[in-house]
Amino acid sequence: MKIEYAVTGMGAVWHAINPRLIPAQISYIAGHAGDKVLFIESAFVPMIERLAGELSTVRLFVLLADGVSMPSTSLPNVRSYEGFLGEGDEDFAWPLFDELSASSLFYTSGTTGNPKGVLYSHRSDVLHCLSIAGASSGAFTALDTILPMRPMFHANGAWGFTHAAPMVGAKLVLPGPKMDAASIAELIEAESVTVTGGVPVLYARLLPHFEAAGRGAGSLKRIVVAGSAPAPSMIEGYERMGVSVKHVWGMTETSPTGTCPGPSRKTARLSQDAQWRRKTGQGHPMYGVDVKIADENGNEMPRDGVSSGRFMVRGPWIASGYFRDEKPLLEDGWFNTGDLAVMDEDSHIHLTDRAKDVIKSGGEWISSIDIENLVAGCPGVADAAVIGIPHPQWEERPLLVVVPTVTSPASAKSIHAFFEGRIAKWWTPDDIVFVEALVYGATGKVQKMDLRRRYAEHYATRGGISLD
Amino acid sequence: MKIEYAVTGMGAVWHAINPRLIPAQISYIAGHAGDKVLFIESAFVPMIERLAGELSTVRLFVLLADGVSMPSTSLPNVRSYEGFLGEGDEDFAWPLFDELSASSLFYTSGTTGNPKGVLYSHRSDVLHCLSIAGASSGAFTALDTILPMRPMFHANGAWGFTHAAPMVGAKLVLPGPKMDAASIAELIEAESVTVTGGVPVLYARLLPHFEAAGRGAGSLKRIVVAGSAPAPSMIEGYERMGVSVKHVWGMTETSPTGTCPGPSRKTARLSQDAQWRRKTGQGHPMYGVDVKIADENGNEMPRDGVSSGRFMVRGPWIASGYFRDEKPLLEDGWFNTGDLAVMDEDSHIHLTDRAKDVIKSGGEWISSIDIENLVAGCPGVADAAVIGIPHPQWEERPLLVVVPTVTSPASAKSIHAFFEGRIAKWWTPDDIVFVEALVYGATGKVQKMDLRRRYAEHYATRGGISLD
Repeated sequence: MKIEYAVTGMGAVWHAINPRLIPAQISYIAGHAGDKVLFIESAFVPMIERLAGELSTVRLFVLLADGVSMPSTSLPNVRSYEGFLGEGDEDFAWPLFDELSASSLFYTSGTTGNPKGVLYSHRSDVLHCLSIAGASSGAFTALDTILPMRPMFHANGAWGFTHAAPMVGAKLVLPGPKMDAASIAELIEAESVTVTGGVPVLYARLLPHFEAAGRGAGSLKRIVVAGSAPAPSMIEGYERMGVSVKHVWGMTETSPTGTCPGPSRKTARLSQDAQWRRKTGQGHPMYGVDVKIADENGNEMPRDGVSSGRFMVRGPWIASGYFRDEKPLLEDGWFNTGDLAVMDEDSHIHLTDRAKDVIKSGGEWISSIDIENLVAGCPGVADAAVIGIPHPQWEERPLLVVVPTVTSPASAKSIHAFFEGRIAKWWTPDDIVFVEALVYGATGKVQKMDLRRRYAEHYATRGGISLD
Repeated sequence: MKIEYAVTGMGAVWHAINPRLIPAQISYIAGHAGDKVLFIESAFVPMIERLAGELSTVRLFVLLADGVSMPSTSLPNVRSYEGFLGEGDEDFAWPLFDELSASSLFYTSGTTGNPKGVLYSHRSDVLHCLSIAGASSGAFTALDTILPMRPMFHANGAWGFTHAAPMVGAKLVLPGPKMDAASIAELIEAESVTVTGGVPVLYARLLPHFEAAGRGAGSLKRIVVAGSAPAPSMIEGYERMGVSVKHVWGMTETSPTGTCPGPSRKTARLSQDAQWRRKTGQGHPMYGVDVKIADENGNEMPRDGVSSGRFMVRGPWIASGYFRDEKPLLEDGWFNTGDLAVMDEDSHIHLTDRAKDVIKSGGEWISSIDIENLVAGCPGVADAAVIGIPHPQWEERPLLVVVPTVTSPASAKSIHAFFEGRIAKWWTPDDIVFVEALVYGATGKVQKMDLRRRYAEHYATRGGISLD
């Protein structure tokens, strides 16, 4: 946190890298971002040492250790964090700079290819925070203690909570590496946390813990849920304990928050059950974000709660393009989220399907196409498709559908061995099914909708995989 | 309201003129602002007819009447409002324009001379509204029904409430001309108003009305109080009825809101009585507004709750200069509010005195110097000073201190006759006292502090004057 505040405050650009990415993606990101200084947890030193030759832009490595616990390392020009601070200028004057200056950068998996960088400005960050902390959204005040339960490399460093908290004078609590239900519940109690932010899978683990303890949710007043839609039973469980569930929607390209369950007279008139059910939807556009449900040509579709179309957004904290990428991202000023949605006359949005060929697992994107491109090179695979299908714990997980070659066909075991070291563990499909052929549509694309329907229940009864 | 939304939405600049100003000030303002179209209530037609010769920039007069009830008038190029709407283009496309474009203009009395124009931009307006509607301030949501009880010519047209309400989707209720306690209470009940905005004098009238009715404050949840500090008894009265008192501070130059009673852990630890007492203070700076208590050289003074100094502010909705006025307004980027204040270590601000020679009556400024300059021309007056002293209903009212000439001295009656038609009724001092001489300080200024001390109780036991 201190690094983030200092780097952005001095007018430089801060970003964090997901250490679970494969090494080639980590060095790609560091090079693409043009990283000059790399701050590294000691545990990751061996990995960075192996990549050091590729990190040509990096001029300084700072290990998050004091001088005493400093590990020996082959990295060039390396400092301990404490040593680095000691070299600092105590009279440093924070500069004033244009609000459009870049503040931070986040990489996200696209539908294909290398990670894409989304560059935020101080302006977009302040406006986004004003809206997420607002009375209709998170309603953060100085009396709140806020616990974001997302890694800092995720969309806008824990969804912008780390900036919204000091904006209103709230207390900010960051979780350590222990993300199990008991540790989180203990942290909430010890710090009198009033608001949390996290993905459904985490809240789903926490709920039975609270219920078993039989003391309610203590200081916890509101939970912000995003990454995927919470189950109705989870919403009801928290609401019955007096905890207001705020299911918000967003993505890295939208800073990330675009919609939230804003108070509405229409919703207020519904029965309590109906109000809770409504929270499975993605809520209303926040002030500052325009939304539309559009057909293929960008024409707005009726706000009737039935017409499903492309969910498009625009506004001051919606990305207009990827960092160092010439490709235009917007259509007539609108960003296509890749989701399909319906919107009712109260501007309440409900996502219905995913248009882009990506899989959303535990709040992070997985590219189907990247896995398909990889598996196409696996011996014994004639054809393959990757689909995201519902998963009880991670919302979606990839399923690999393989047409094996006639001679020397691949086996599940040989494909898993092939994946090893080539893609991140959490991108690896949980299961592989073998079919005789894939069905292609008129445009030459695999009919994935049919596959998703056919295998919809495949993970429904199985346990979750561990991402830890 | 419709006019305001339409004018600003089309990229033009909207402003309202206080009809209680003297005619010369009205024509000055219209000319200074360069008004092109004047919308007029029928009741003001005779006044505008008399001024028509001086309104050289005005190309069109629109009377707020339909064709049938249209009064006959000598005004040139005049339309009825309904007729004007009929000429409109139904396919008008709302333009997009730079956020720094001017949106509205408000005139305020300075310490001397002609009214000064403060020009707001769409940008300053949006940022100000995001902050005043925020969770730490008004906490406006779509479930609120908001009743601003300020005239539209006042700072930012009823304090920006008319923009903050649609921003969050709240219902907006505007009062008619009936501002007596019974009418306001009836309106609150009929429309289920949850939030109001107004000056203490109005709330002071409303409180006994609620108490006499014995049914609490009904739907009313929060009251925003500004213009002057509410009395402790008034704060307690509302809080006991379950109505949260939000005493905010601002002025036309600050859009207008600069401080509000933001939630604070320090305040939350106080007893209920102490929390209510703290609300007589002006609260905390809102996010977006920097504050400092400064000495004469602009150096920040300690935030110790004791050191009194010049209360200075800066931020994106603080004016940097007056409209069509070359004179620099800021000191090193800071706006001097003209108030003296103390600030504690919790950044809680309490105004202690007024540095500028102005009088704040019922939330509006009265210039002492302008009255003094005027009265200097009154036959039989050798010397004179105008001071603002505490008044039970209007916070402050002007008192005129006169040194009469030896021969043919002025009388209270002759001075009042002299004021007639020369200054607005509500600027006229409520009383006149005669003294032998005024005491001047080293810099050649009348020692007003002494006068204010001497006459502090002068209005304490008298009834209020009527401004209606």
